[in-house]
Amino acid sequence: MRIVRFEFDANIFYGELENDSIIQWSKAPWLGGTKQKREFSLTSVKLLAPCTPGKIIATAINYPGSSGLPKGAQEPLVFLKPASSLIGPGDTIVSPFDDVPVWGESELAIVIGKRLSKATESEVMDGIFGYTIGNDVSAENVHGWDHHLARSKAADTFCVIGPWIDTNFTPQNKKITGYHNDVLLRQGIATDRLMAEPALLVWLSKWMTLEPGDVILTGAPNRVRDRIYLKSGDSFTCVIEGLGELKNDFVLYQNT
Amino acid sequence: MRIVRFEFDANIFYGELENDSIIQWSKAPWLGGTKQKREFSLTSVKLLAPCTPGKIIATAINYPGSSGLPKGAQEPLVFLKPASSLIGPGDTIVSPFDDVPVWGESELAIVIGKRLSKATESEVMDGIFGYTIGNDVSAENVHGWDHHLARSKAADTFCVIGPWIDTNFTPQNKKITGYHNDVLLRQGIATDRLMAEPALLVWLSKWMTLEPGDVILTGAPNRVRDRIYLKSGDSFTCVIEGLGELKNDFVLYQNT
Repeated sequence: MRIVRFEFDANIFYGELENDSIIQWSKAPWLGGTKQKREFSLTSVKLLAPCTPGKIIATAINYPGSSGLPKGAQEPLVFLKPASSLIGPGDTIVSPFDDVPVWGESELAIVIGKRLSKATESEVMDGIFGYTIGNDVSAENVHGWDHHLARSKAADTFCVIGPWIDTNFTPQNKKITGYHNDVLLRQGIATDRLMAEPALLVWLSKWMTLEPGDVILTGAPNRVRDRIYLKSGDSFTCVIEGLGELKNDFVLYQNT
Repeated sequence: MRIVRFEFDANIFYGELENDSIIQWSKAPWLGGTKQKREFSLTSVKLLAPCTPGKIIATAINYPGSSGLPKGAQEPLVFLKPASSLIGPGDTIVSPFDDVPVWGESELAIVIGKRLSKATESEVMDGIFGYTIGNDVSAENVHGWDHHLARSKAADTFCVIGPWIDTNFTPQNKKITGYHNDVLLRQGIATDRLMAEPALLVWLSKWMTLEPGDVILTGAPNRVRDRIYLKSGDSFTCVIEGLGELKNDFVLYQNT
């Protein structure tokens, strides 16, 4: 099942994607929604970020060979992105910064279906609603002191998720790629993550309660070439095998 | 006016504190609530965190003389705490970590009343709903690599705000102190902050939209003695002159 959130005639709905049609749900499935009868044509709606998370948790240094991994580290770095940074498929990433360059990162994202606090492995597997694609848009450090903090990670439009949440997707051996325009920048295999579910969510839920609709970005695979910064007119595309594609254009904000 | 949020008979209300009475509001004032007629005795309710922020923005290195300030820095560090970390006055701070020590930080907190995006100074001053007290509970680094990231700042119970939001409070020359049990640990003057309102919110709103009910912790004043870590049975108390006192006990979580 692929769950979408979409705008039609100035109203916002949840729905289930079936080929080129969307069947409406009464509300988000993880909040008790149920399938309705009303049907929309995919081409008549605007797809939005497929959920509205209370929190967006992101992980870094979660693929082998990352240069940032300290000796003996047994957990990824964990940081937060605010709900105000969220946009959906096709929306434009707008950098508000003229002092620091910006880039995209392609990541597998988990959407939580049930509240998880100090959860066991089986509670975690039951508590995952599904998977979507995330672009953890990031800005360069200022003074080398705020890497992964809000200045580099939390600006409006700096978190893209979508285009849908797939409840049947399994990460096993799936390829994750990220493209600056048509140039392959990042590539990895989802199963290679240093900490993946259920272990990642068992560990997170030991200290941070996960709520239905929360999103966890599970880290970007390594770069396969030098970093390329985004400039106005560029795009960044995240592709996950078996899950789909998430493409967004980029512009630098002009204070006119 | 002092706005509180409280629990009475298993229901949660907003209200206005007048001496030892609370007059109910229909909902949060920043969401269009209005004053009602029902009155509660302060002693008959449990005070909660006075708002339920969509995001909690925190700043660090925002008082002069901080050892962490890089040369030429013209902005504080900015990080995020999740809504899931929020507790209120009198609640217990429970550390889930047996591998890292934990301490408290006493801070002036701003509660946003109106949406602020790329706001001017006058929009900011009109957009501040009021002030409360915040305890930015923090854990030591792991591998020296996650300072101010989620592992050190985002655990459940690691953000205390309250006991009320004061709409008449002005920070000018107000003393901020933080006490480990009865030992003075931190002390400063709110006006000494390197970036205070309106400039702080003008700058934040250039890149991150602030929503009604959002909270900004404006940084801890410097320590006046060596750090003391919290152990089970200790308390941490934040006091802001003219605003009030926020006291919480601490325990280390026991996995029984």
